[in-house]
Amino acid sequence: MFEHNKHLQYTVRIGECNPGLANLMLEQFGGPQGELAAACRYFTQALAEDDPGRKDMLMDIATEELSHLEVIGSIVAMLNKGAKGRLAEATESAAEMYRSINGAGNDSHVTQVLYGGGSALINSAGVPWSAAYVDTIGEPTADLRSNIAAEARAKIIYERLINCTDDPGVKEALGFLMTREVAHQKSFEKALYSIEPNFPPGKLPGDPRFTNVYFNMSQGEGDARGSWNQGKEWQFVSDRNEQHAVDGGNGEASVQLTSDEMSAVKAAAMRTRSKPDVDPTTGADLGSQGKASRPKS
Amino acid sequence: MFEHNKHLQYTVRIGECNPGLANLMLEQFGGPQGELAAACRYFTQALAEDDPGRKDMLMDIATEELSHLEVIGSIVAMLNKGAKGRLAEATESAAEMYRSINGAGNDSHVTQVLYGGGSALINSAGVPWSAAYVDTIGEPTADLRSNIAAEARAKIIYERLINCTDDPGVKEALGFLMTREVAHQKSFEKALYSIEPNFPPGKLPGDPRFTNVYFNMSQGEGDARGSWNQGKEWQFVSDRNEQHAVDGGNGEASVQLTSDEMSAVKAAAMRTRSKPDVDPTTGADLGSQGKASRPKS
Amino acid sequence: MFEHNKHLQYTVRIGECNPGLANLMLEQFGGPQGELAAACRYFTQALAEDDPGRKDMLMDIATEELSHLEVIGSIVAMLNKGAKGRLAEATESAAEMYRSINGAGNDSHVTQVLYGGGSALINSAGVPWSAAYVDTIGEPTADLRSNIAAEARAKIIYERLINCTDDPGVKEALGFLMTREVAHQKSFEKALYSIEPNFPPGKLPGDPRFTNVYFNMSQGEGDARGSWNQGKEWQFVSDRNEQHAVDGGNGEASVQLTSDEMSAVKAAAMRTRSKPDVDPTTGADLGSQGKASRPKS
Amino acid sequence: MFEHNKHLQYTVRIGECNPGLANLMLEQFGGPQGELAAACRYFTQALAEDDPGRKDMLMDIATEELSHLEVIGSIVAMLNKGAKGRLAEATESAAEMYRSINGAGNDSHVTQVLYGGGSALINSAGVPWSAAYVDTIGEPTADLRSNIAAEARAKIIYERLINCTDDPGVKEALGFLMTREVAHQKSFEKALYSIEPNFPPGKLPGDPRFTNVYFNMSQGEGDARGSWNQGKEWQFVSDRNEQHAVDGGNGEASVQLTSDEMSAVKAAAMRTRSKPDVDPTTGADLGSQGKASRPKS
Amino acid sequence: MFEHNKHLQYTVRIGECNPGLANLMLEQFGGPQGELAAACRYFTQALAEDDPGRKDMLMDIATEELSHLEVIGSIVAMLNKGAKGRLAEATESAAEMYRSINGAGNDSHVTQVLYGGGSALINSAGVPWSAAYVDTIGEPTADLRSNIAAEARAKIIYERLINCTDDPGVKEALGFLMTREVAHQKSFEKALYSIEPNFPPGKLPGDPRFTNVYFNMSQGEGDARGSWNQGKEWQFVSDRNEQHAVDGGNGEASVQLTSDEMSAVKAAAMRTRSKPDVDPTTGADLGSQGKASRPKS
Amino acid sequence: MFEHNKHLQYTVRIGECNPGLANLMLEQFGGPQGELAAACRYFTQALAEDDPGRKDMLMDIATEELSHLEVIGSIVAMLNKGAKGRLAEATESAAEMYRSINGAGNDSHVTQVLYGGGSALINSAGVPWSAAYVDTIGEPTADLRSNIAAEARAKIIYERLINCTDDPGVKEALGFLMTREVAHQKSFEKALYSIEPNFPPGKLPGDPRFTNVYFNMSQGEGDARGSWNQGKEWQFVSDRNEQHAVDGGNGEASVQLTSDEMSAVKAAAMRTRSKPDVDPTTGADLGSQGKASRPKS
Repeated sequence: MFEHNKHLQYTVRIGECNPGLANLMLEQFGGPQGELAAACRYFTQALAEDDPGRKDMLMDIATEELSHLEVIGSIVAMLNKGAKGRLAEATESAAEMYRSINGAGNDSHVTQVLYGGGSALINSAGVPWSAAYVDTIGEPTADLRSNIAAEARAKIIYERLINCTDDPGVKEALGFLMTREVAHQKSFEKALYSIEPNFPPGKLPGDPRFTNVYFNMSQGEGDARGSWNQGKEWQFVSDRNEQHAVDGGNGEASVQLTSDEMSAVKAAAMRTRSKPDVDPTTGADLGSQGKASRPKS
Repeated sequence: MFEHNKHLQYTVRIGECNPGLANLMLEQFGGPQGELAAACRYFTQALAEDDPGRKDMLMDIATEELSHLEVIGSIVAMLNKGAKGRLAEATESAAEMYRSINGAGNDSHVTQVLYGGGSALINSAGVPWSAAYVDTIGEPTADLRSNIAAEARAKIIYERLINCTDDPGVKEALGFLMTREVAHQKSFEKALYSIEPNFPPGKLPGDPRFTNVYFNMSQGEGDARGSWNQGKEWQFVSDRNEQHAVDGGNGEASVQLTSDEMSAVKAAAMRTRSKPDVDPTTGADLGSQGKASRPKS
Repeated sequence: MFEHNKHLQYTVRIGECNPGLANLMLEQFGGPQGELAAACRYFTQALAEDDPGRKDMLMDIATEELSHLEVIGSIVAMLNKGAKGRLAEATESAAEMYRSINGAGNDSHVTQVLYGGGSALINSAGVPWSAAYVDTIGEPTADLRSNIAAEARAKIIYERLINCTDDPGVKEALGFLMTREVAHQKSFEKALYSIEPNFPPGKLPGDPRFTNVYFNMSQGEGDARGSWNQGKEWQFVSDRNEQHAVDGGNGEASVQLTSDEMSAVKAAAMRTRSKPDVDPTTGADLGSQGKASRPKS
Repeated sequence: MFEHNKHLQYTVRIGECNPGLANLMLEQFGGPQGELAAACRYFTQALAEDDPGRKDMLMDIATEELSHLEVIGSIVAMLNKGAKGRLAEATESAAEMYRSINGAGNDSHVTQVLYGGGSALINSAGVPWSAAYVDTIGEPTADLRSNIAAEARAKIIYERLINCTDDPGVKEALGFLMTREVAHQKSFEKALYSIEPNFPPGKLPGDPRFTNVYFNMSQGEGDARGSWNQGKEWQFVSDRNEQHAVDGGNGEASVQLTSDEMSAVKAAAMRTRSKPDVDPTTGADLGSQGKASRPKS
Repeated sequence: MFEHNKHLQYTVRIGECNPGLANLMLEQFGGPQGELAAACRYFTQALAEDDPGRKDMLMDIATEELSHLEVIGSIVAMLNKGAKGRLAEATESAAEMYRSINGAGNDSHVTQVLYGGGSALINSAGVPWSAAYVDTIGEPTADLRSNIAAEARAKIIYERLINCTDDPGVKEALGFLMTREVAHQKSFEKALYSIEPNFPPGKLPGDPRFTNVYFNMSQGEGDARGSWNQGKEWQFVSDRNEQHAVDGGNGEASVQLTSDEMSAVKAAAMRTRSKPDVDPTTGADLGSQGKASRPKS
Repeated sequence: MFEHNKHLQYTVRIGECNPGLANLMLEQFGGPQGELAAACRYFTQALAEDDPGRKDMLMDIATEELSHLEVIGSIVAMLNKGAKGRLAEATESAAEMYRSINGAGNDSHVTQVLYGGGSALINSAGVPWSAAYVDTIGEPTADLRSNIAAEARAKIIYERLINCTDDPGVKEALGFLMTREVAHQKSFEKALYSIEPNFPPGKLPGDPRFTNVYFNMSQGEGDARGSWNQGKEWQFVSDRNEQHAVDGGNGEASVQLTSDEMSAVKAAAMRTRSKPDVDPTTGADLGSQGKASRPKS
């Protein structure tokens, strides 16, 4: 069960209202790399997890991410607080209001007009948060890697936001949130490597014919080699003829049809066949030749 | 530039049509962990990458994923081929058609009615593919971790699909695709660790006060310890009082308002204040007491 | 700050695994009327709310909804637990697995293949949760009405789910969750009517010429009268001529263009004008008359 | 059947073109609280409604909302008319065009570049309209509450838009549209209270143990009481121990597994168990210690 | 302005309830090729259109599509009517209800549980309608082509639906709706060819060096020729060397950076460079070698 | 199989960085009319196509569109290159960074903060690409018309973009891409008219009673005639009485219910009936009359 303590995990002290800055902050509230995505990712994993250690860790961190969601949401609310009041009460002339709503040069207009200056679950472009951002698939060696990656991404977005503001209160709170992503990544790394083995993920082994092959699919000036495609563990394949139909077959797709299916497929093919040997007049011909208006005979 | 060779990377030989199985396969065609997501993830990274080694690797693998998209899409097309013909030509009675369209017990009906038995960019639930699945953020130590995680997820989905079919041709092609995810994960791992250091991601360091703290946010029977929250590198915080306002502040959110903003905020607050000391009759009271129809005086 | 207690708000005791039933339960986990939508609705309102009473109430109920999300998510996880294990370990033959994955006749296949038998933030059709479900707009007399309506809707979905299962443990837990929606609706009603006046919402009054008019826009057999369109407070307008251009104007849309704009608009109109007095041959004519293949002269 | 009369319901007279203002207006054309959402909400309810009075009312208002959609869409079209012409004919230099397309400081660039200055079914942030906005669930006491709330929200958005423009023609037309939301809310209120009883919605009663309980889930400075949680009808529960496992059980989630399920679950748990008693070297360790490049032995 | 006449454009007489068939019908109610998409496509075009003939035609057909939306929605409502009543009143045992809700083998469960047996704006897979389906761009020679294509698609979906039912009333009404798509396509074709010239669309001419070139990008067994790539008007290019860098340049992407930009780009490149000459130990190495648990020195 | 050649199809030479212009370019990278949509449209058609000529053409053009995606993506990457470096390295003060991130007046802020200055699969409003843009339905006479329309739309968007920039390198590359849309449209036109007949699409004929009828649904000043609704092939119906119930029936929707269904439907109707003859006090009455706070008796 969740309980709520009215203290924030980190105190939020904002120097002055700034709806434009609030708009950028939304990335970590309702954006793909933000705190709701993080909380949902770990919470959904926790629910279905049976391993006692991971289940506990996932719920610990999910809960902390909800607390971060509250911190970043509070930053957004404070930065918008003045705009919210002005819009609700119409304390300015329409011309001033119009200017201030559009003045930030970003999407803060939607936060104001549609969301009334609140903390909306959108990213900085106004796109509503979607569970399509949550990549939980219910297998721990995959999910933990997803978590590690997600923490790395969130850390970077915080870093970018920090670089865009010199309000000390915002900077400090963002610094805390950024740091916690580092700590969480470390926990998820430990949890991943506490599963032995954890690579390859899952139960089925790979086909040894193809596990160590690197296909050089992009060729030309700029081709490069490195530990990701050279060394004793790699078989490097550049010859185009060895890149296709690698099973040794004909490289075609086929299916065995029943006779009824065959009949139907053939009938459809016949009905819609293209005649390559004619050169038909087309709609584009009519449209480009200016002859469209000729009277019909 | 992309070029296309009419041979598939792996030959597709399907034993018999099965729209229900085709529906499941769509997960790796138009689903979140599927090949289009993979191709788009690496392709978008490649375009903006300047490091010569990574750029080449990303384009190599993006191109291979497009080739995998073609393989899995061809599997879908073959499994649906009979249904496509039957529906186009209406070779069955309406009752038979209705039964066969709904007979699989999954979402193959939408592939048939809406997409005509083709390979649609949807997942197995019929949800259209979305670029919200692509988590590229333009920082290599984050993006490579995203790629590692994505390959791990895709490997697992293939494993599950393999477990659901005994058509040898499908099984074999899926085995190839699954194996390639393992190989790609290895390449991305090598590329990640070829950046030194790669942790923490980005440029800004974490705040040392919070980098090694583990907040035990979920408490009760089931609390567990492990390398992710114990050991010399972790400071484990269970005391609820030490979990909030960790900056030592009051744990509140505040902003400095201008006097105009203050006036507007106050006016809005006054206009919409709730009166806690009254017990109003409500709409629910009216609706539940059956007194709503009393004549208005 | 959020804290987590490992006890659920309501104990979940499931009689037997049933992925098909789990699929239906997802409506209240990741569906539009489900607990995540509820929690997000109230949480976003709480963050930007300044009225002390409402802010406290909104955070109380948001926190409880998160706890409900955990209960319903746990129900889903338990109902899927067997399927999750079987799929991960491939303990059945492929044919059995295929049958069991598709056997429910609903979308449980996506929960299994894509989400590994976990609690996914999707509805019962597999559609990912979207913040488009959250209708918070930052004005209390509107938001509270949205909350009242949302609780009413959630109550009904729970009622429908209860009607579909005879597992006593599921029924009992759903009954608790359903009941809490009733209690929450009552709180929101009280909070709404604690604002005086609360109708019409907002600050601007309506235009008295149009506040009490009912336009009978749909006419024919079935026209009906009731308190919503008859009585002394309603002006009932059925005459089509009094329904349009109700301002007394010409009912047209116009704008004053600058001369530059006028020139551009005229040029565009001239370039793309349709010639009503010609009867052009069209692409459809070509396609239907079978004359498409005539040699071009 | 729908019929169309070429007169608008309200005459639209715009003073001058302004693509930036047009962008804001899109909120009520293709936004979540806009006229398409309203029309679709009532229209879908009307189709499945059997009660003669409600069915008629719903279709009346749905039809009027379509007419409002036409009014707000015409406002958008007029405000964009000059920009549409200029862009189509390229009457300005590229530099001027670039400036005018980006000059509004909001998302009018997408209306111009993508939609050619037309009335697009997007909100002011460019997000396409989604039926996820339509909360019809097919139960009148819930749906009518949804309608009441939706009218309240739409009224507020119109109020905000009115506060942002001093074009008299726009202001006047918006005033009409805003007023009609008030009138519609009144009709829906009458229709709701014409059902007796209407609370709680639906057929199943709540569980009396939990109907009048208020859980004080958010605690700390700021805790407040009011009619929503105090008074004789409320049981106020603050003790954390009385908030969880309120059924008197152990607060855990459990399911009875078959022996086959049990075996599979155990096998999966064993395969993916985390070993809490080891302190593994992790990828983050490698990445942070700068030891990644050591030659492999 | 829209007016509503209570007669449907076509009488709907359904033989018996069938929620599974209702589910399929949703494709033309809330699906991408359905009537709402059609109505919105033409209505948005009509609003911004200045040509008197096209404007009138677009509004005529938009209005008819709304009337079709009502017809198909009424079919859905009638097919679901029994299920709606049973679910609302719980007239069956839970086991029977569960069976009937999942019995269709398609997504009718979501129509029932979530939408209460109403006509929901979703497609047959339960995906909410999106304005992303509406391809209006505000240029008549493009939009009319979009309309022609849309009518062709809608005609086909109706044809498929007709092939799936033998309820005479459904079949007959669908036949009417299908036929009207044919008629509308004809009108749009006439309107397109009434613009002279209409090809290429827009104002800017193509670059004559590339207008008549056909690049043979997909090569191998199966290469084919036809009027679309052979004949005097086509220049057929198969040589891979003539397919890239067709401008005669180096085929690279470049930009001129300022010195500040250059410095920043170089710094970022240096910080995140991959070292191709080392073979780092990776996370996958740790995970696969089973050495992860070695004690840290 | 796809292969990649490191030369672009067209050389990209950008004069200077401009994130605002990059933002506009995204329309053709990740927007609805952009190159990914084009590639996916033709690729999905190619996979399921059996006609040898069309299959080859579709794969040829799909592959070229992928190459165009690379060109437009490279333009975006180059225009953002400086911003990407500056943001990653924080080479400017926070104030400068804030200004430059918001300075373009469009959505380039999201490309920078969220996507790090890369080429993201979003449109110029930041909306993620969706497969809902892909209108493939698996019937060639419909799909080819969709392709023709899509090429026309893409041509126009390129034209608009060309009109917004005077960077010669951008203009030139866009000119190439625009021209290729013209060439592709021509190929698709040829392929369409190589199918005989191709109108009406599909197999079922229309109902001759309704194929040539034009319903004048929108009436009033502005009614117009043209080849789309007049001439010997059209039956023009303006009489409202001849527009509804055109089958000669009663224009109502009906279904035959079983007796069980009838009982349930009646019970639901009775339970939720509205009472038209009462004038209930409503929530709005309470809220507007200021009487809500009266003590309850």
